[in-house]
Amino acid sequence: MTSTAGIIRSVCEGSIRAIARTLTRVENGSPDSVDILDGLFGKQQGFTLGVTGPPGAGKSTLVNRMITRYRSTDNSVGVIAVDPSSPYTGGALLGDRIRMQSHATDPKVFIRSMGSRGHLGGLSGATRDASCVFSAAGYSPVIIETVGVGQAEVEVADLADITLLVLVPGLGDDVQSMKAGIMEIGDIIVLNKADRNGIDQLESYVKASLELMPSTMERPEVVRISAANGEGLDELWEAIDRLLLKITREERKNRSAIQTLNGILEETGRNFSEKLLDVEYNGRDAAERLILSGKASPYAVGKKLLAAAERMFQHDEC
Amino acid sequence: MTSTAGIIRSVCEGSIRAIARTLTRVENGSPDSVDILDGLFGKQQGFTLGVTGPPGAGKSTLVNRMITRYRSTDNSVGVIAVDPSSPYTGGALLGDRIRMQSHATDPKVFIRSMGSRGHLGGLSGATRDASCVFSAAGYSPVIIETVGVGQAEVEVADLADITLLVLVPGLGDDVQSMKAGIMEIGDIIVLNKADRNGIDQLESYVKASLELMPSTMERPEVVRISAANGEGLDELWEAIDRLLLKITREERKNRSAIQTLNGILEETGRNFSEKLLDVEYNGRDAAERLILSGKASPYAVGKKLLAAAERMFQHDEC
Repeated sequence: MTSTAGIIRSVCEGSIRAIARTLTRVENGSPDSVDILDGLFGKQQGFTLGVTGPPGAGKSTLVNRMITRYRSTDNSVGVIAVDPSSPYTGGALLGDRIRMQSHATDPKVFIRSMGSRGHLGGLSGATRDASCVFSAAGYSPVIIETVGVGQAEVEVADLADITLLVLVPGLGDDVQSMKAGIMEIGDIIVLNKADRNGIDQLESYVKASLELMPSTMERPEVVRISAANGEGLDELWEAIDRLLLKITREERKNRSAIQTLNGILEETGRNFSEKLLDVEYNGRDAAERLILSGKASPYAVGKKLLAAAERMFQHDEC
Repeated sequence: MTSTAGIIRSVCEGSIRAIARTLTRVENGSPDSVDILDGLFGKQQGFTLGVTGPPGAGKSTLVNRMITRYRSTDNSVGVIAVDPSSPYTGGALLGDRIRMQSHATDPKVFIRSMGSRGHLGGLSGATRDASCVFSAAGYSPVIIETVGVGQAEVEVADLADITLLVLVPGLGDDVQSMKAGIMEIGDIIVLNKADRNGIDQLESYVKASLELMPSTMERPEVVRISAANGEGLDELWEAIDRLLLKITREERKNRSAIQTLNGILEETGRNFSEKLLDVEYNGRDAAERLILSGKASPYAVGKKLLAAAERMFQHDEC
């Protein structure tokens, strides 16, 4: 058995083995991971880049390009590939991860597909903690790639220092109506597959939508690229660097600290609800039986738990 | 002021005005909505249909067709359009809702775009409660449409009695790798735009992916349609009806009750975490200051809150 302090030291020294083990503990929500994360939190040195957007946008190809870019300056690069793991089979799919194989033999590139097997905070909690591990181990940037265009993106945008929203022409006009909402998630909007038909139309559309953003908000930059053939990538790297200069290291740290706190509060609450159920209903099963027999609605149960919590706090104050 | 009992009665009688007001309270997470929902919970009579899938799949056109279908048998139809509301501006976008205008003047069709302004349970909590209101008011089906392919779909699949996953050819091969995971969400997989190139390929791909599902799981039916010109819709309606016959009213009620309980437990927990912060740190602001000054990590704060909760429960037992 290695001590917590020993694990923390090994992770900070960049031991691949210690990192891999810690990532697994984090993903599984092991109780001892809290102490490890507590020790790693203040040692973080990296910045995080989110890459998000609808399926088919070419995110993995772009991430591959980013790895090459940061490796050329000898940065170590961590990639957290957040696949929506199947809620029923518990399996996380590897899918397009395979495309990153060009970096598979580079020891300074660490790619991890994340699931959320036992983590109380679900996928975003597991991703947040994994990012802390990577960052304390010296990986910079930590790239967080998500597949999808739902709530996950919003959460990634919160986790990452800079988020790229990758869009692509030809996903149908339904996408257009949705993009207006999701657009604000990106610090940089990347229009990929710039050689495709419809790219001008997409750019006009994106720019028109950005016009509608409240004037108090920073407008994201829009950059055209072709991740496949490398076109426009220099402009994209410059845009990222410009943004990184705008936010100080201090600001980044603070933002991440508050996000982490919020996630942890959520998890604490979840834990607590279960305990309240134990006290008030003799466990979840009994509460469920009451509800299924029609003797109480779930809303009534919720109200009773809240009242019990109130009492407990008043009691504690005496 | 109308009493809670009065509101419950009016909603169950189908008063459009009472329903609209209750939906607003629910969306805002008003404290009095708990008592209204407690009263409505047991009066639910409708079933819920989820319609989900990636952007561009033609979900709204299909929902429009569904409305026409159920109106032809004089059902009242409620539609909850779950748009990913912008996390920064708080605005929910109407977008493709406009396409449903053909039913806009029909008083037995109630379309509501949902946001989650003040609801502790976020968008899925607000949707769950709105569905309860619609169902108690006699709407059947309640159609829940989500745009996106992330966590939201999983949550909708949990809320709805039957979920249709709508796919469409030509979203790029990146979609393919993702679909394998998301496919299990659908009770019926709808291949829309059957007249498009690539539909055969998509169907082969979908069927091959379904082969990979664990044999203990029910394989979803795959139905080809063209929502725009009406092709294949009869087959789809039959598939829905067959599935509805398979699950009893009792089973549907029980499933929904447990889902509701889970959501409410989450919200209770959130409420509780905030109170713990008050007691242990004199409020969230003070805890944040401690973290930002580097005196404690968010993980240390979480650990302390959990320990405090433990103590409180032990105290309560004495």
